[in-house]
Amino acid sequence: MAELGTLVLLRHGQSTWNAENLFTGWVDVPLSEQGEAEARRGGELLAEAGLLPDVVHTSLLRRAISTANIALDVADRHWIDVRRDWRLNERHYGALQGKNKKETLEQFGEEQFMLWRRSYDTPPPPIEPGSQYSQDGDVRYADLGDKLPTTECLKDVVERLLPYWESAIVPDLRAGKTVLIAAHGNSLRALVKHLDGISDEDIVGLNIPTGIPLRYDLDENLKPTNPGGTYLDPEAAEKAAAAVASQGR
Amino acid sequence: MAELGTLVLLRHGQSTWNAENLFTGWVDVPLSEQGEAEARRGGELLAEAGLLPDVVHTSLLRRAISTANIALDVADRHWIDVRRDWRLNERHYGALQGKNKKETLEQFGEEQFMLWRRSYDTPPPPIEPGSQYSQDGDVRYADLGDKLPTTECLKDVVERLLPYWESAIVPDLRAGKTVLIAAHGNSLRALVKHLDGISDEDIVGLNIPTGIPLRYDLDENLKPTNPGGTYLDPEAAEKAAAAVASQGR
Repeated sequence: MAELGTLVLLRHGQSTWNAENLFTGWVDVPLSEQGEAEARRGGELLAEAGLLPDVVHTSLLRRAISTANIALDVADRHWIDVRRDWRLNERHYGALQGKNKKETLEQFGEEQFMLWRRSYDTPPPPIEPGSQYSQDGDVRYADLGDKLPTTECLKDVVERLLPYWESAIVPDLRAGKTVLIAAHGNSLRALVKHLDGISDEDIVGLNIPTGIPLRYDLDENLKPTNPGGTYLDPEAAEKAAAAVASQGR
Repeated sequence: MAELGTLVLLRHGQSTWNAENLFTGWVDVPLSEQGEAEARRGGELLAEAGLLPDVVHTSLLRRAISTANIALDVADRHWIDVRRDWRLNERHYGALQGKNKKETLEQFGEEQFMLWRRSYDTPPPPIEPGSQYSQDGDVRYADLGDKLPTTECLKDVVERLLPYWESAIVPDLRAGKTVLIAAHGNSLRALVKHLDGISDEDIVGLNIPTGIPLRYDLDENLKPTNPGGTYLDPEAAEKAAAAVASQGR
């Protein structure tokens, strides 16, 4: 059996809405200047590690796509194959999309806020159809029809992500490719939960830092031989994870 | 029979080597700032015309890839499917790659210079294996093996382009998609020669301006119903084509 390819996860850098502390979800905001710099740094880390992707999978959201474009250009891998799918999108944040995190915390209190942000199976209230930050009528999701999410918990993300993992990403890994996934905090948490076999309870405490490539070496059963993965810049990853955990405070 | 999709050709904007008046070919130089601005303008023209690509095909060269990334981001179509192939690359300029156009003109004279630049079937001398601007050992072309070009005339470009046109682009058009091709002066000339049935003699005089989307409406036999195509900004296209024709002077 041929050796499996290497998996590399890359969470997009800061977006303009991250910078303004707003819930983003499926709203398609661009990277901030800091986010672009994080993407360049991600590309430098890939190049320094000689971890050169053969194919990239992205969500349909600009902040992940731009992160991939920038990082791959810096790593001189701009020319590789590209795959995109809505199943790699960020968690849909329902009615919270476009709301300020700090104001939401003050309005609803710590308990409700953390339930929406971090519970495994409690989604926020659904977004109002046709409202400003709804994805109704967005042509990139036209094929979804009735299945277009109006809110999601992490469990929902796991359920919609795994079919794409199995059908599109695993075949690339089995072909021996180095696979880059450029995606989002929660779609990557969903994948890491699956890869590392993390429980519904323990996934709550896991944060993935932005802009730092996370390498997974997988055995032929697609189990990590380096559980938890290996950050290409472990020191920066530790600092960044702590910063993510304090968001909304 | 379903109606054919629309074809849109986009030649990359100015590269740093265009700005320095060097023969580029397969050397993978980036866009200049002006080239990035041209790409943004290309995206604006697509958006203004409501000509929204469903899929983009690019060469393996950074200046075409960046042009596509920038234009599609501006047109809010960053999320579409992406296909890349070496067959969309610029003509390989052989031993001229990396040389100054003006100096080459002075060194070899007008007749030889124009023969290399514009004759249909006379390639420049081949590039020296292992020399600075050769593509030997470039991993993106590893699959080509012995078929890696060391020089090309436009006839060679037509011959290597058409298999990709038939096998990859035509199926997208037959599926009714709006197809964007982000490529190069000579790979696009090769395609236009084929589409419009231009003779080996007449193609010499055809210049395609940079950064201005060129729309082709095709009938079911893949013949243009608008021969010569339609530039989204005809006035700018006319000015730009004149400027290209005077390069090296």
